[in-house]
Amino acid sequence: MNKEDFFIKHISNSKYIGDDGAFIDGFVYSMDAFFENVHFKKEWMSLKQIAYKSMIVNISDAIAMNAKPKYALLSVAIPKTYTNKDLKSLTKGFKKACKEFDIKIIGGDTIQNEKLDISITIVSKTSNPIFRTGAKNGDLVCYTGTLGETRKDLEKLFKNDKISKNSKFIKPILNPEFFYHISKYVNASMDISDGLFLDLEKLSKSSKIGFEFFENISEDIGISGEEYELLFTFDEKNKEKIEKIAKKYNVKLNIFAKAINGEFKTEYKNHHFKD
Amino acid sequence: MNKEDFFIKHISNSKYIGDDGAFIDGFVYSMDAFFENVHFKKEWMSLKQIAYKSMIVNISDAIAMNAKPKYALLSVAIPKTYTNKDLKSLTKGFKKACKEFDIKIIGGDTIQNEKLDISITIVSKTSNPIFRTGAKNGDLVCYTGTLGETRKDLEKLFKNDKISKNSKFIKPILNPEFFYHISKYVNASMDISDGLFLDLEKLSKSSKIGFEFFENISEDIGISGEEYELLFTFDEKNKEKIEKIAKKYNVKLNIFAKAINGEFKTEYKNHHFKD
Repeated sequence: MNKEDFFIKHISNSKYIGDDGAFIDGFVYSMDAFFENVHFKKEWMSLKQIAYKSMIVNISDAIAMNAKPKYALLSVAIPKTYTNKDLKSLTKGFKKACKEFDIKIIGGDTIQNEKLDISITIVSKTSNPIFRTGAKNGDLVCYTGTLGETRKDLEKLFKNDKISKNSKFIKPILNPEFFYHISKYVNASMDISDGLFLDLEKLSKSSKIGFEFFENISEDIGISGEEYELLFTFDEKNKEKIEKIAKKYNVKLNIFAKAINGEFKTEYKNHHFKD
Repeated sequence: MNKEDFFIKHISNSKYIGDDGAFIDGFVYSMDAFFENVHFKKEWMSLKQIAYKSMIVNISDAIAMNAKPKYALLSVAIPKTYTNKDLKSLTKGFKKACKEFDIKIIGGDTIQNEKLDISITIVSKTSNPIFRTGAKNGDLVCYTGTLGETRKDLEKLFKNDKISKNSKFIKPILNPEFFYHISKYVNASMDISDGLFLDLEKLSKSSKIGFEFFENISEDIGISGEEYELLFTFDEKNKEKIEKIAKKYNVKLNIFAKAINGEFKTEYKNHHFKD
């Protein structure tokens, strides 16, 4: 068992843990860390891009649970060397995400630290949360968009190559309106943060299902993390309705497997570059 | 303007910011960071004590707003070198605080990092929040317990001297039941985290009042931070009721000033040892 799993196992057996966020009485609470030299290197992105992405990866969790993000709390540890201009760039990134998703920053903490370490809590609202546990035998399994680019861009960054500022590694693309629209047809969902294979393993464990793949999924696609695409399952009878809505929002659907009795495990480990 | 104030000024003009927590529709949301080499050094406390204190300083905010903490989200960055035994010690500290205050851990994030950096969000409930803005002209101003010891203990730690494991620096003492009981008589409140002088300056700014001190407050008392005692104001007519309740809960009261027209500023800077 890795340390993260060991820690989580010992900290709580709460029913709320194990999904993208915790659903309680109409609210979804989610919290993610975004730390320098763990999730990013400062050479890779501007401070505005870093702050923006730190919000987006958190907002992604809310959307994957069919919740609308409302409030954010930010814990921001800032290097002593940062100038007021640097601080302004950071606030611009946070505020850009807040504006796009209509989120209010309601609190948090600011401290001085050796490096830029951000933790964000998002409070969201939903009347119809979608969990990782809801996939049913026979469901079709689908992800949005294109997978693989993020990992390739990350490899480039490690080789000190430049990547496009439109790379999903810099600026993940979320599709909230599409997902809220199809939500009534969706049985289980999560975002793809660790890579499709690892996230399928989590979905398998949560919903107690296996997968019958329609075709082989390449490693390029399966182990690319931080994609923040949506992974979800639905009854085959809703396929056309979902495809129609996807077309309307210009979202690419990849229906790649059927949920079956069984269990899915991957041999791949967490891609995060800290390991 | 220091960097923290600069950042906060630029990040949000939200009415929710500027108190111990943000009150929205019956809930109070508060978030505090507790970082290695910023708030503690690992030689000073056991991992269990660190985790426990990281929770307590957050719970203190909820109590100071007359809210009952219900849920916690933890962002925990853990050094690679930590053993499973270390992780267990951490979880024990978190769980001890949760048990004492009947809090459920509902989520968060665990990552690998160079040092132990904790951020915690507490979700609390209250039907009668108390803000820093509520102090009225003529109010009596009071703090609980004894101030000064924490700073002395911190100085000892810097000199590599030992301190008692019962030191409030290791284990802050909160008085939730006392405060909930007197809450209906309280006009404004906050916890003492930066030191009485600095916190009085904040209270002055929030409530737009000054203070007439009944006697001189020594530097020993005024600049001792991380005390987590309660600072609050109330109408003189409620003095006896509050004193009676304090006696019942064995809480020491120090009524040291009267709120007057004016403004209070201190020449002292934030005591946190990061500076």
